[in-house]
Amino acid sequence: MLSLPGVSSLRLDEIVVRLGGELIGDPATLISQVATLDGASAGEISFLANPKYRNRIATTRAAAVILSPTAAAGCPVPCIATPDPYTYFARLAQWLNPPESPSAGIHATAAVESDIPATVSIGAATHVGAEVRLGEEVGIGPGCVIGNGVEIGAGSRLMGNVTIYHSCRIGARAIIHSGAVIGADGFGFAREKDGSWIKIPQIGRVIIGDDVEIGANTTIDRGALDDTVIEDGVKLDNQIQVGHNVHIGAHSALAGCVGIAGSARIGRRCTVGGAAVILGHLTIADDVNISAGTLVAKSIPQAGTYTGTVPFLEHADWLKNFARLRHLDAMADKIRALEARLAELEKK
Amino acid sequence: MLSLPGVSSLRLDEIVVRLGGELIGDPATLISQVATLDGASAGEISFLANPKYRNRIATTRAAAVILSPTAAAGCPVPCIATPDPYTYFARLAQWLNPPESPSAGIHATAAVESDIPATVSIGAATHVGAEVRLGEEVGIGPGCVIGNGVEIGAGSRLMGNVTIYHSCRIGARAIIHSGAVIGADGFGFAREKDGSWIKIPQIGRVIIGDDVEIGANTTIDRGALDDTVIEDGVKLDNQIQVGHNVHIGAHSALAGCVGIAGSARIGRRCTVGGAAVILGHLTIADDVNISAGTLVAKSIPQAGTYTGTVPFLEHADWLKNFARLRHLDAMADKIRALEARLAELEKK
Amino acid sequence: MLSLPGVSSLRLDEIVVRLGGELIGDPATLISQVATLDGASAGEISFLANPKYRNRIATTRAAAVILSPTAAAGCPVPCIATPDPYTYFARLAQWLNPPESPSAGIHATAAVESDIPATVSIGAATHVGAEVRLGEEVGIGPGCVIGNGVEIGAGSRLMGNVTIYHSCRIGARAIIHSGAVIGADGFGFAREKDGSWIKIPQIGRVIIGDDVEIGANTTIDRGALDDTVIEDGVKLDNQIQVGHNVHIGAHSALAGCVGIAGSARIGRRCTVGGAAVILGHLTIADDVNISAGTLVAKSIPQAGTYTGTVPFLEHADWLKNFARLRHLDAMADKIRALEARLAELEKK
Repeated sequence: MLSLPGVSSLRLDEIVVRLGGELIGDPATLISQVATLDGASAGEISFLANPKYRNRIATTRAAAVILSPTAAAGCPVPCIATPDPYTYFARLAQWLNPPESPSAGIHATAAVESDIPATVSIGAATHVGAEVRLGEEVGIGPGCVIGNGVEIGAGSRLMGNVTIYHSCRIGARAIIHSGAVIGADGFGFAREKDGSWIKIPQIGRVIIGDDVEIGANTTIDRGALDDTVIEDGVKLDNQIQVGHNVHIGAHSALAGCVGIAGSARIGRRCTVGGAAVILGHLTIADDVNISAGTLVAKSIPQAGTYTGTVPFLEHADWLKNFARLRHLDAMADKIRALEARLAELEKK
Repeated sequence: MLSLPGVSSLRLDEIVVRLGGELIGDPATLISQVATLDGASAGEISFLANPKYRNRIATTRAAAVILSPTAAAGCPVPCIATPDPYTYFARLAQWLNPPESPSAGIHATAAVESDIPATVSIGAATHVGAEVRLGEEVGIGPGCVIGNGVEIGAGSRLMGNVTIYHSCRIGARAIIHSGAVIGADGFGFAREKDGSWIKIPQIGRVIIGDDVEIGANTTIDRGALDDTVIEDGVKLDNQIQVGHNVHIGAHSALAGCVGIAGSARIGRRCTVGGAAVILGHLTIADDVNISAGTLVAKSIPQAGTYTGTVPFLEHADWLKNFARLRHLDAMADKIRALEARLAELEKK
Repeated sequence: MLSLPGVSSLRLDEIVVRLGGELIGDPATLISQVATLDGASAGEISFLANPKYRNRIATTRAAAVILSPTAAAGCPVPCIATPDPYTYFARLAQWLNPPESPSAGIHATAAVESDIPATVSIGAATHVGAEVRLGEEVGIGPGCVIGNGVEIGAGSRLMGNVTIYHSCRIGARAIIHSGAVIGADGFGFAREKDGSWIKIPQIGRVIIGDDVEIGANTTIDRGALDDTVIEDGVKLDNQIQVGHNVHIGAHSALAGCVGIAGSARIGRRCTVGGAAVILGHLTIADDVNISAGTLVAKSIPQAGTYTGTVPFLEHADWLKNFARLRHLDAMADKIRALEARLAELEKK
């Protein structure tokens, strides 16, 4: 693998000084990378977050392990005990793997029509329109298209082939992956009597807060009249579709292939499982978890976990059972009729 | 927001002269933009299409409102009464917000291998192959890839990072959003006895009519042997997949994340809700509406609305209820058995 | 249609010498292209694989037909009889339609930071990073972004606007369609107590075998710690999402819009129907077929066909029947109660 920029090695005691936790074992143990319990080799630190993998500790070749105080007892290698091993691991992984920062400057093949800070990096064949405002140390990869009047906050990073339509605003420290399209027209049409469609110009924008990550090939449409809003800390996986005038509350996380129809309002700290769909004009409360594959067809006013998926079966079993769905109402009628007849009989 | 090209202001009487409707209130009222009833401020006109928002008229700060004659009575601001406020609003919104037309010419960083009209605009870092035929005033954004032999009709607009494979044909006045891919190979393979696949060359094209809009990151595959066809006035939202040899009839509209498998034939003026899936080789009649999230696994020979989605529940309730789906057939058997036993008993 | 490179014409006897099969009819019949039975015209050869289209042979204008020995009897035109007409057809179609090979060399507007073989073709506005290793006769279309340290095997072809992140490895003879994104960060975050997210750096790669085809706008995420792996001969359709650390076994084929969540392991020679979803950390055995639209929520240890989709109905029928799903458990209780009461009665 190509060597990426990073720190060379950390001592365990150095790690504990910065990130906390209780160090058990040789403080001079050197750590150069993170790894899984099974995949770790010399110089790598692993973590144990899920107790069901506990027995893997016995065989790991990791130089050290991050784990909870209760799991530290039998650990055969040096370890760091901490109440939340996974967040600890995340912080250490970030320390060991700082994001690659592209060198500042405008590539010779880029076309930039705005004044931008000297600390900004613009990749090959990228087009930056007029009246664009970029914060310090923004990194824009190759092949991007940044429309007129776009604003992007300091430290944000756009990977290759990202498209941002005119007038959209992105906060600081965003990460936007390749193929993402921010600010395309929402799907808004009025229908003529003959069935043809008149386009409603989409004059709103997309407004994105700070610390947002947007996955590859995800699309977020601009608002029709008002704006589409993504609040701070939202994480969107790949291939997500966010319709016009959607509002996603802070720190909500949406997994891959999710679809959010126009004007839906999702609360804060929600999670939406992969391929779930939320229909238009609904309101989802804060702290709602929607299971993967669920179609949300009405508003959810209360926090909780919601699911609406069907089990799968071997095909022949499925044929037998699922065809019944067409006749559920008749089944319910039959049960009612049976109850009445039985009651009649019991009276006698 | 960046000022977009547009008309500066219209008088209400000027609007009514061109678009019709009955003007109630000061004919000199000036309108510079459209807005929602809640979001409107001075100089903006709103509309009331859905009677359930009627009470918002009392508090709107809009300069004027477009509404139905029956709703015009108590309107506290000037208004235009018309039988279909939404299409009226659409037409006025278009008048006030003409599409931005990029200035004609080929960007210095574009690579164009065909003769194109002087009125055409080609964006930065765009590649136009050989034997490409573009109509007057076609606008192709930055980062596009236009294959050899492509034809695009007059007035069509491709936003940034659009890809059109060789030999495809697009009609006049199309709008194609970023990340769309037109004409990639259909998914066609023959299977060897050992389970490996032999690719079937995809030698058909994609043929798209006039006035079609194609959303961001939507993909339309070229035909295997014959062509994939999208008729006039079709509107496709974002993230849609259209398989090879699909035929979509005029003025049908498909919402985001829809998937249409190969050789499906969709009629005219159909609507397909978000994330619905239509399996291959099916035929859908004209004027069919398919609800969001529905999997269409057999042909629909008659106009109407069709749905096949399951409700969602709080997770614990879902566990209790949906597990029963695996045993629906057994439930039906039990009901039949009960009916038989009861009949037996009733005979006595 | 634009004339593509290819052979001009083949005699039927020439075909049979190379591809086998029994030739019935004039061996000098000239074939220049493949076509459907209905669409074929002079000089074109068609095939009959599905017996249900058998009657189309009577009316075809094809110059010849490939079919099974049992179907050869009444064929009114020259034919080639072979046990598997479809694979035969595929091979002939490939012979008649060799893939267009772009001419070697680096386009003047491309930016290439690595040494590459003279036989490689790099399209307009494409960026190739540092330490990239390309095999002989690799073709990279316009608008691509190839990250540092990427390896691509001989004869592979990337169409326009493809993005490959740093350090990913692609085997020989791959076909990667436009808008595909290989190696974007997986969706990995640890959660803070306040609900915000800490990004887990994604330091694995994507490793892709030989003879893999990847559809338009498909995304394959890089591994979190270990690699994401796609084995030889895998075929991925458009708009597929493959999460981090997924492993797809050789010769499996996934149709459009499929989503595979992180760390799922799919066996060899599996097929996954369109828009199916496989949840994370599951294991799917070899030779499993998953029907379109099915959500796979637990591992499948055995070969077979598995389905979990619901039928669709006219909307009014659906309302009546599917609302019952919320009360299936109560229905089961009622049946049990009826059985008990009936047993009681029968005892008397």
